Amino acid sequence: MPLTMDAIRQAQARIAPYALKTPLLRMECLDAALGCQVYVKAECMQRTGSFKLRGAMNRALTLTPEERARGIVAASSGNHGRAISYAARLLGAKATVVMPRQAPEIKIQAIRALGAEVILCETSERFRLAEELCASRGATMVPPFNDETVMAGQGTVGLEIMEACPDMDVIVTPTSGGGLLGGVATAVRALSPRTRVYGAEPAAMPRYGRSLEAGAPVQVPQDTSIADALLAQSPGGLCFSYVQQNAAGVVPVEDAFLLRGMKLLLTEGKLLGEPSACIGMGAALQGVLPVRSEEKVCFVVSGGNAGLSQLHALDAL
Amino acid sequence: MPLTMDAIRQAQARIAPYALKTPLLRMECLDAALGCQVYVKAECMQRTGSFKLRGAMNRALTLTPEERARGIVAASSGNHGRAISYAARLLGAKATVVMPRQAPEIKIQAIRALGAEVILCETSERFRLAEELCASRGATMVPPFNDETVMAGQGTVGLEIMEACPDMDVIVTPTSGGGLLGGVATAVRALSPRTRVYGAEPAAMPRYGRSLEAGAPVQVPQDTSIADALLAQSPGGLCFSYVQQNAAGVVPVEDAFLLRGMKLLLTEGKLLGEPSACIGMGAALQGVLPVRSEEKVCFVVSGGNAGLSQLHALDAL
Repeated sequence: MPLTMDAIRQAQARIAPYALKTPLLRMECLDAALGCQVYVKAECMQRTGSFKLRGAMNRALTLTPEERARGIVAASSGNHGRAISYAARLLGAKATVVMPRQAPEIKIQAIRALGAEVILCETSERFRLAEELCASRGATMVPPFNDETVMAGQGTVGLEIMEACPDMDVIVTPTSGGGLLGGVATAVRALSPRTRVYGAEPAAMPRYGRSLEAGAPVQVPQDTSIADALLAQSPGGLCFSYVQQNAAGVVPVEDAFLLRGMKLLLTEGKLLGEPSACIGMGAALQGVLPVRSEEKVCFVVSGGNAGLSQLHALDAL
Repeated sequence: MPLTMDAIRQAQARIAPYALKTPLLRMECLDAALGCQVYVKAECMQRTGSFKLRGAMNRALTLTPEERARGIVAASSGNHGRAISYAARLLGAKATVVMPRQAPEIKIQAIRALGAEVILCETSERFRLAEELCASRGATMVPPFNDETVMAGQGTVGLEIMEACPDMDVIVTPTSGGGLLGGVATAVRALSPRTRVYGAEPAAMPRYGRSLEAGAPVQVPQDTSIADALLAQSPGGLCFSYVQQNAAGVVPVEDAFLLRGMKLLLTEGKLLGEPSACIGMGAALQGVLPVRSEEKVCFVVSGGNAGLSQLHALDAL
């Protein structure tokens, strides 16, 4: 089913009993630092600690009873895996999550706590391994981003923002494979064509910057970043076309600025976002986000699954 | 002017251009741990980082031009001083803040950054020193709690909670001299007599527990607590009578539970409250807060002025 406004509205109705309508917070204390009228969509307060629940739940609810019985497999850096594990438990299905050995301990533990099987591997191996598992077990793969039903779920973030503040000028989402950005941009383009939706991605892995320039999905080398949830090597093929059509652009952000954004959000905004979730604020601090001081800009703080030990990196800033 | 519902409504109108209407957040992720339906009044997101702005602003706005010209003095553990300094700067008055040497560095710095004069002293000396300064300079003292105009400002917290959620069953506020508790309890008693308002105070300095038992304000020895904003030795005399009349009780909380509350709020709720602000959650964790699982309970997270270095204490929990 193609990603349309109708599909996103259907997703909203389908997941309503399971996903929270998270708060849209006005944070004027960040205006001066970020150079705009700051709003925050607090998906860090979403169940399972990230927006990923929306897409995972939307997909899991459309599985047939036979598919549920054979189990679900997910390749994930952590948050999608946790969302899938939560959805699977709710529906009585078995979940298996293939995730990078380097994933934060807090994410691995949360998934195990939901009763899912965790398989650790190298970051670049996770999709291949997950596919092999699906083939050998007859299980269903729920992709973290490259799936229109998953994207429709993520698009409900955009729908909620525009419902709460119809005159939002700009929305910024963290970007990896492009599920969130593609979903939100598609929803917002339909609801308010003048509102610009930007993605922000790690400068070390500029898969969208390169792909948008080339006009087609491009793969970049696996690299590392403090943004552990944003390490996909290439855009999802489906995601790419929705992003290309509906987003205003994707900007590259250095880890140092991302961390400053995380610190700002915590110490001034009083909100805990995980590193990846703060990349949009990092973009504004780095000066690469094209916004003006009078514009209402919503930063999607996509998740809050950060352990206390991860906060120590902020001390030195 | 006595503290009445009218006075609190007037305060609300007077401070509306200066103080934020902070969000009331539903935090179901804390329900199981705290044993009730958890709501948080996020005064940590208030301007100057705490609810103290409400009372300070309400009092500062009622100063005569002559009083403004002679300056304002405040004795404070930090948050009231910051609020007074902010109000004074807004009104073009000079502010002097007498505060404990042991106050967190983040609070001292914030006050200096607002252009106020800071005088450091022993915790127990701060009120006497402030009075001497007022006498010698002809300045006006704005007390941190024992003042009905200040209390009316703090009472707007209760008004906002009941406006946002008229069927709230219980409200819990951190308690030191009793300005916040007295103000909130008076507002809530008038608006919804069945709603119970509790205070939570450090077990090391149970000035309200003792005073309510004795039927009159009692002084306890100066002691220390991680709750640096809750170290008053006795209830304000005015505060005490409003608390006695309108509050449902005050419970003593051990530092260890307070810290667990702070950690829970940060890691699960994704919100940064300063230690003192988390004492209500500490009370629930300690099992001393009389609430039932089906009750809607609002925890007033009264401030967020905690430095990153203060978060290290949470690591070991």
